[in-house]
Amino acid sequence: MEAISIGLLGLGTVGTGVVKIIENHQDKIMHQVGCPVKVKKVLVKNVNKERDISITKEMLTTNAEDILNDPDIDVVIEVMGGVEETKDYLTKALQNKKHVVTANKDLMAIHGAKLLQQASQNGCDLFYEASVAGGIPILRGLVDGLASDRINKLMGIVNGTTNFILTKMSKQQRTYNEVLKEAQELGFAESDPTSDVEGLDAARKMTILATLGFSMNISLEDVKVQGISKVTEEDIRYGSQLGYTMKLIGVAQRDNEKVEVSVQPTFLIDSHPLAAVNDEFNAVYVFGEAVGETMFYGPGAGSMPTATAVVSDLVNVLKNMRLGVNGKSAVAPQYKKKLKEANEIFSKYFLRLQVKDEVGVFAEITSIFSQHGVSFEKILQLPVKEKGLAEIVLVTHHASLADYENILVELRDLETVQTVKSSYRVEGGIK
Amino acid sequence: MEAISIGLLGLGTVGTGVVKIIENHQDKIMHQVGCPVKVKKVLVKNVNKERDISITKEMLTTNAEDILNDPDIDVVIEVMGGVEETKDYLTKALQNKKHVVTANKDLMAIHGAKLLQQASQNGCDLFYEASVAGGIPILRGLVDGLASDRINKLMGIVNGTTNFILTKMSKQQRTYNEVLKEAQELGFAESDPTSDVEGLDAARKMTILATLGFSMNISLEDVKVQGISKVTEEDIRYGSQLGYTMKLIGVAQRDNEKVEVSVQPTFLIDSHPLAAVNDEFNAVYVFGEAVGETMFYGPGAGSMPTATAVVSDLVNVLKNMRLGVNGKSAVAPQYKKKLKEANEIFSKYFLRLQVKDEVGVFAEITSIFSQHGVSFEKILQLPVKEKGLAEIVLVTHHASLADYENILVELRDLETVQTVKSSYRVEGGIK
Repeated sequence: MEAISIGLLGLGTVGTGVVKIIENHQDKIMHQVGCPVKVKKVLVKNVNKERDISITKEMLTTNAEDILNDPDIDVVIEVMGGVEETKDYLTKALQNKKHVVTANKDLMAIHGAKLLQQASQNGCDLFYEASVAGGIPILRGLVDGLASDRINKLMGIVNGTTNFILTKMSKQQRTYNEVLKEAQELGFAESDPTSDVEGLDAARKMTILATLGFSMNISLEDVKVQGISKVTEEDIRYGSQLGYTMKLIGVAQRDNEKVEVSVQPTFLIDSHPLAAVNDEFNAVYVFGEAVGETMFYGPGAGSMPTATAVVSDLVNVLKNMRLGVNGKSAVAPQYKKKLKEANEIFSKYFLRLQVKDEVGVFAEITSIFSQHGVSFEKILQLPVKEKGLAEIVLVTHHASLADYENILVELRDLETVQTVKSSYRVEGGIK
Repeated sequence: MEAISIGLLGLGTVGTGVVKIIENHQDKIMHQVGCPVKVKKVLVKNVNKERDISITKEMLTTNAEDILNDPDIDVVIEVMGGVEETKDYLTKALQNKKHVVTANKDLMAIHGAKLLQQASQNGCDLFYEASVAGGIPILRGLVDGLASDRINKLMGIVNGTTNFILTKMSKQQRTYNEVLKEAQELGFAESDPTSDVEGLDAARKMTILATLGFSMNISLEDVKVQGISKVTEEDIRYGSQLGYTMKLIGVAQRDNEKVEVSVQPTFLIDSHPLAAVNDEFNAVYVFGEAVGETMFYGPGAGSMPTATAVVSDLVNVLKNMRLGVNGKSAVAPQYKKKLKEANEIFSKYFLRLQVKDEVGVFAEITSIFSQHGVSFEKILQLPVKEKGLAEIVLVTHHASLADYENILVELRDLETVQTVKSSYRVEGGIK
């Protein structure tokens, strides 16, 4: 029985994990696939580097063409990262009728739709489970769910760094800067944490999830993004008093065929299953019309979880090869994208204001809300810290984003409103 | 294009849901499968009953043979329940080369291995996702996970009734009997709740999960079962003081190729993701060697979630038919069953004792533990309620079940130990 040959682009921690899993699970993979699988060639930067892995020097190359143009290689696994050059490599691989497995969220968020189209045109598989929350089989879960249901809402905690930071801030009453520093020391945050803490990483994953879940070509620019760097420990404490937990939540929601996708720090009602997802863990909550609420929980990153997802995808490619049905599942988005306008996006909001401690101020503020038809679910009067100033927290009932933004403008114009201290979306009111 | 014909055994709420989903998602199913799908014949008890569904009277029959012997019918969907007669029907269906989808956990827990073997021998698919936690794609998740990982532990909250009862007891400090009554009124518990509250329903599901997860032929008799009817609100309160949440947990664990499967009321450390699974929801926590901790959460029952799972299975059967690869996934267990002995099952334990309030009692008790090499993680001295008596709660470090059971025997023999009030397994200490 002839072995199926794999080409590997990249041999960092994930690539090394992939090689180890293929080796350790050779029997099991063969049982499922019907023939042996071997890694034939690996693209690396430095062929002379010492590696703790059973790869001979002859298998290493610094020239991608050695893999992309090798007619023996059936499947290309991409774990090198990067966007533009990597896209060119994978395009070439697909043109040469090689199936592709990638763990690259940046690439899939930016060029995913195009690459899926190329895969489909070339009769090739393109699988990318590892690109979103490595250890959680969420993409397959969505595909399965879609078979007999309609997904109307996705909410995800899809960035481990920010979840680690918000968990520590919440449980230990510590400041953002303190916890960020600890996260950097522990290796949970990078020395330049911008992509994580400003929500860009989460936005890329939500792009991939929304594109698949709604079968629309959602692009990164469609995602409204706000990071966690301005979240204060005071906000978290006041939210907690009202029964909310602060999380960085990606939301993708569909109503009447129009969708919204956003990432922002959000107060979740404490009883929501996502509120209990702590530390560096990830979870994706899915609301299907028939099935109702489901949630997938697991490690969002880490080289072994990611490598496991890559090998699961590889096994699916190999099964499809055996069956001769590759290229059927790489479905390009089916529906035309329709994004909601601000007056079609509805949510509850948490708003914290510093106001002058005068008679009639409260009436003045609430009248602005009622002029826009927005009412309150909760009101909290906070202890006064500065003489002459009062702080209040308002939680609205559902309001359109358009109305809410107009209210904010009008509140800022009020002479009696000193500062809008913070404003967050609130999720999870309906059980 | 000729339609694929389905025979349906049973037309209760799940069966009706299946008919509706097939009708409403006809386009989507056709897109995936390549041909139309129609329900041809339905087995019912009464053909004259009024039904809110587009099924003509000619499609109904009271004779199962009309379905099992109809050469036009390719797939039999079983949603009628029952065990022995149903097994005979499905055996006949498989012998007649019909693929089977079932939602029947009782049947699969008792005759699953045999039926899977028959399916495999006849080149037929036998899918049963809906039999465990209807709304959660856990069986497919396990199969996927198994492709490139090794599952060492499963923990499940797999019974909605008991989870509803324990959640209300915990959150509202109410008694078991009070909450059971409410659950019965709300329709979450049956008028004879034995199968749920004594853990039998959960044991059936754990049998199915363990058989698949470990690929061993686990039978219902292998599962140690204890129900929740003796759990008191006091136990829950004392556990809560120590940082634990009470859940009915099914555990399936493998160490050194030997396994244990059990269902019992368990104290979970509050930070464990299963501790946040409330009300009638279900969840299955999976520990894979490479991937680490993952969890699948969703509705455990309900006619629409269950019907959705049935139709997902049906779509997989139909895809396999198109590819001509039926009967490959109905794998009979691969490994010989090896069960752990009591000295190989390790856990922490919560023990609540009523003792005489005398000097030296505590030393007497703890010396029994130390003679068996068992030490303590937590000790709680409870307020004395009766004169001359004290209550203490002990939480052990990991101990073998054999040692722990010996300790219990010796404690009961002590003159100073008035009563062993309660004893529970504790899970989730290691993060």
